[in-house]
Amino acid sequence: MKHFNLEDIENMSNLYRLNLINSVTGYKSAHLIGTVSSEGYENLAVFSSVVHLGSNPALIGIILRPTSVPRHTHSNMKSTGLFTLNAIHKNQIEQAHHTSAKYPATVSEFDQTDLEEEFLGDFPAPFVKGAKIRLGCRFLNAYEIKENDTLLLVSAIEHVFIADQDIQQQDGWLKLENANTVAINGLDGYATTSLLDRYAYARPKKV
Amino acid sequence: MKHFNLEDIENMSNLYRLNLINSVTGYKSAHLIGTVSSEGYENLAVFSSVVHLGSNPALIGIILRPTSVPRHTHSNMKSTGLFTLNAIHKNQIEQAHHTSAKYPATVSEFDQTDLEEEFLGDFPAPFVKGAKIRLGCRFLNAYEIKENDTLLLVSAIEHVFIADQDIQQQDGWLKLENANTVAINGLDGYATTSLLDRYAYARPKKV
Repeated sequence: MKHFNLEDIENMSNLYRLNLINSVTGYKSAHLIGTVSSEGYENLAVFSSVVHLGSNPALIGIILRPTSVPRHTHSNMKSTGLFTLNAIHKNQIEQAHHTSAKYPATVSEFDQTDLEEEFLGDFPAPFVKGAKIRLGCRFLNAYEIKENDTLLLVSAIEHVFIADQDIQQQDGWLKLENANTVAINGLDGYATTSLLDRYAYARPKKV
Repeated sequence: MKHFNLEDIENMSNLYRLNLINSVTGYKSAHLIGTVSSEGYENLAVFSSVVHLGSNPALIGIILRPTSVPRHTHSNMKSTGLFTLNAIHKNQIEQAHHTSAKYPATVSEFDQTDLEEEFLGDFPAPFVKGAKIRLGCRFLNAYEIKENDTLLLVSAIEHVFIADQDIQQQDGWLKLENANTVAINGLDGYATTSLLDRYAYARPKKV
C-alpha cells in the first residue's frame, strides 16, 4: 500500500499534486456552463465542480477559483444573473475539454469547437445542442472560502430540460446512464458509467 | 423534450422532486466517512457530497444538511477534528447504502453491516477495510449556506492511502476505474465507470 502524509503532499511537484489531489476525491460531475456577457459575447466553459445543495428549494453549488480559467463565466453570471448547465454527453468530451483553453472574452467557445448553441424559450443564455439534461439557473450568492481563496457560488435551478423519454423514471429519478452523461476523473479524464443498482430508503435492522 | 419550470418544480411531490433534483446535477462521488466520538463510539456514514476544493493546500468540502442523517458524523468531526474518507468499492455498495439508516449514536455501523474497520498508523478514526483509496482528514471550518441552511465543511487531506499498484499512474493521477470506485446517481443509484479518454492541457487554437 502506498502512503503519502501531509509533508509528502506538500513536497510533491505542482503537477503531480494537482493530478493526485484532483482525482483522490472520486468522480465529479461534468458540465458545460453557457453564459452571455452584458455586451452580448457568449462563453462556454467545462466545469467539474457543480454539486447538489438541496432539492427544496432546488439549489446547486459551483466551486470556483476566481483567478483561474472560468473567470468569464463568473463575471457573466454576476452581470446577467442567468446561465445554463449542460450535462456533457460522451460524444462531446473532446470538444468540451477544449473549452478550458484560455480565449479572450470576446471569443465564443461555440466558434472554436464543434459544439453548437441552442436557445430555449426566452432564456437569454445559450444551451448546448445535443446535451440530454440541461438546466437554466439563476446566480444567487457567493461565499468566500478563506482557506484557499476559492468561491462557492450558490444558484437556483429555474428550468429543467430532459431530451429523451427513457432518461426520467416514473418516480422522478433520472437514469444518467440513459443520458450518456459522463463523469470526470481528476483534471482531464472522462468516464462513462453503467448503473449497478438502486436501493430502497435504508431503515435500521433490529438492534 | 420534457420541460419543468420553477413553478413545476415547486409544485412537485417531495419524493418526486428529491429524486429529480438529486440526479439532475450528474454523477457524485461515493464515500464512507468514518469517525469516532469523544466517548469512543464509532460511526460510519455514506456521503455523496464530498468535493474537491483545491490541491495546494489539499482541501476537500462536504455539503451537510445539519438536521439530516449524518449528524453523528458532524458532531464527531467537530469534537475530535479527525475523520476518514473511504472510496466506496463496487462490492461494498449495498452495505454502504445501509449506513444511511438512522441508528443511535452508541451503535456502530461497523456492527450493523459487513463492513470492517481498520486502523492505519496512529490515526484515531476508523478506516474501511477493502476500500482502495482512503484519506485521513482534519476538519478546519464550516460555512453556513443561508439559502437552505446547509453547511459546507472544509477539511484538509493529511494522509492518502492507495491500495494497489495499478491505480496511481506515473504523473500522480489515480485511474479510478482500476480502484473499482463507484459514482452515485441521485439519492440511491450506484454506478461503475470506465475511462473513455484523458486529454492534454487545452491551449487556444490560432484565432
